[in-house]
Amino acid sequence: MALQPKKGFRSGVDAVLLAAAVPARPGQRVLELGCGVGVASLCLNARVGGLHLTGVELQENYAELARQNATAAGAEMRVYASDLMALPADLRQQQFDHVLANPPYYAAGSRQLAKDTGRETALGEATPMRKWIEVAAKRLAPKGYATFIQRTDRLADMLGPMAEHLGSLEIQPLAPRAGRESHLVILRGRKDGRAPLCMHPPLIMHEGAVHLNDAEDYQTWAVDVLRNGHPLPLR
Amino acid sequence: MALQPKKGFRSGVDAVLLAAAVPARPGQRVLELGCGVGVASLCLNARVGGLHLTGVELQENYAELARQNATAAGAEMRVYASDLMALPADLRQQQFDHVLANPPYYAAGSRQLAKDTGRETALGEATPMRKWIEVAAKRLAPKGYATFIQRTDRLADMLGPMAEHLGSLEIQPLAPRAGRESHLVILRGRKDGRAPLCMHPPLIMHEGAVHLNDAEDYQTWAVDVLRNGHPLPLR
Repeated sequence: MALQPKKGFRSGVDAVLLAAAVPARPGQRVLELGCGVGVASLCLNARVGGLHLTGVELQENYAELARQNATAAGAEMRVYASDLMALPADLRQQQFDHVLANPPYYAAGSRQLAKDTGRETALGEATPMRKWIEVAAKRLAPKGYATFIQRTDRLADMLGPMAEHLGSLEIQPLAPRAGRESHLVILRGRKDGRAPLCMHPPLIMHEGAVHLNDAEDYQTWAVDVLRNGHPLPLR
Repeated sequence: MALQPKKGFRSGVDAVLLAAAVPARPGQRVLELGCGVGVASLCLNARVGGLHLTGVELQENYAELARQNATAAGAEMRVYASDLMALPADLRQQQFDHVLANPPYYAAGSRQLAKDTGRETALGEATPMRKWIEVAAKRLAPKGYATFIQRTDRLADMLGPMAEHLGSLEIQPLAPRAGRESHLVILRGRKDGRAPLCMHPPLIMHEGAVHLNDAEDYQTWAVDVLRNGHPLPLR
């Protein structure tokens, strides 16, 4: 359970999938860029436990909800209400074992604006994708991991900058059903990583070729990740 | 059947897969960059028929074999022995409906050199990947298609430049077996294309989870493409 704004951007399964893909261990330092109300970080902590969480969120009202959600969850989470482009000096002196982010899904100027300002800020892209990746890489400790979730159609915007700043890149495509195009990708990179880029087989979210009725038809792995707090099986 | 050098770089299934992925129609103009002995272009012409083929190949002895192979196949193919970085003026005035390429698989300095110079030139990267893509895009007619085949681990080097110069990007991962990581990708882009990037489900080359014996175990689609001259089913 997390407090969310009545109107505006509401976290969905994407935040849960992102959390499930972060290979964190208890006691590690975790930074979430654009943390919203904190769903991904708090999911991650619920699974792993004992994490030192830090969030950065541009919108003060979302940042405040994240703080309340962390307190309610008994998690240690410091949340900065700050622009990615101008992080506080305090934060710029810290390093993290993991950085995670679900950057806005739409490039600037590529779509009609959402009516709700909070929703628009969460979905639209004021900060270029390249900057999200640069900031993530900069805040990582040596051998730390950056994990992102993003729409597959933004892959070209992400891979170049990730290859510049990180190594050991992994692409995990997600697809709604077998035989369908990928709609989301989880991307992981490692600071100072030296392994070649690797593309995993797609993870298929739903059983069957079409959505037949309203009954839930998530595949077993997806139920495990979305409901039972299991890690995402990057293959 | 194609003449190939006794020693050196010998075309494999990659050239055939590449040819199968080019959506050409009879009578169209096709340019292959780094055409080697011409296998991909001649496969494409064998499937589609009546193409006006042009090849560019850095190594004169390979270019000469391509000319001989084209004559033997009854294909119309003009082959320039030229560096991509300095195409002849004549060629720089032409536009093509399709450009295809199987750029060298290894980045400069990333590996031991092959002992055979011809093989090294075909496999190693003297011309940066970005340049292959720029030249392809420049030679395309409006709405023309560029099609590449490349190792999956070079995806980050290709997608950024492709997104800069082309649109309607498509990624078709190929994987040796079900559940295995992708080893090759076919990438397609369209000049002036406006569709969002799309990642297709992987095409699996072989039946079964492991290679059990020397008997051929290609999947039906792969037999159709590699032996029966069918187009590659980008899904």
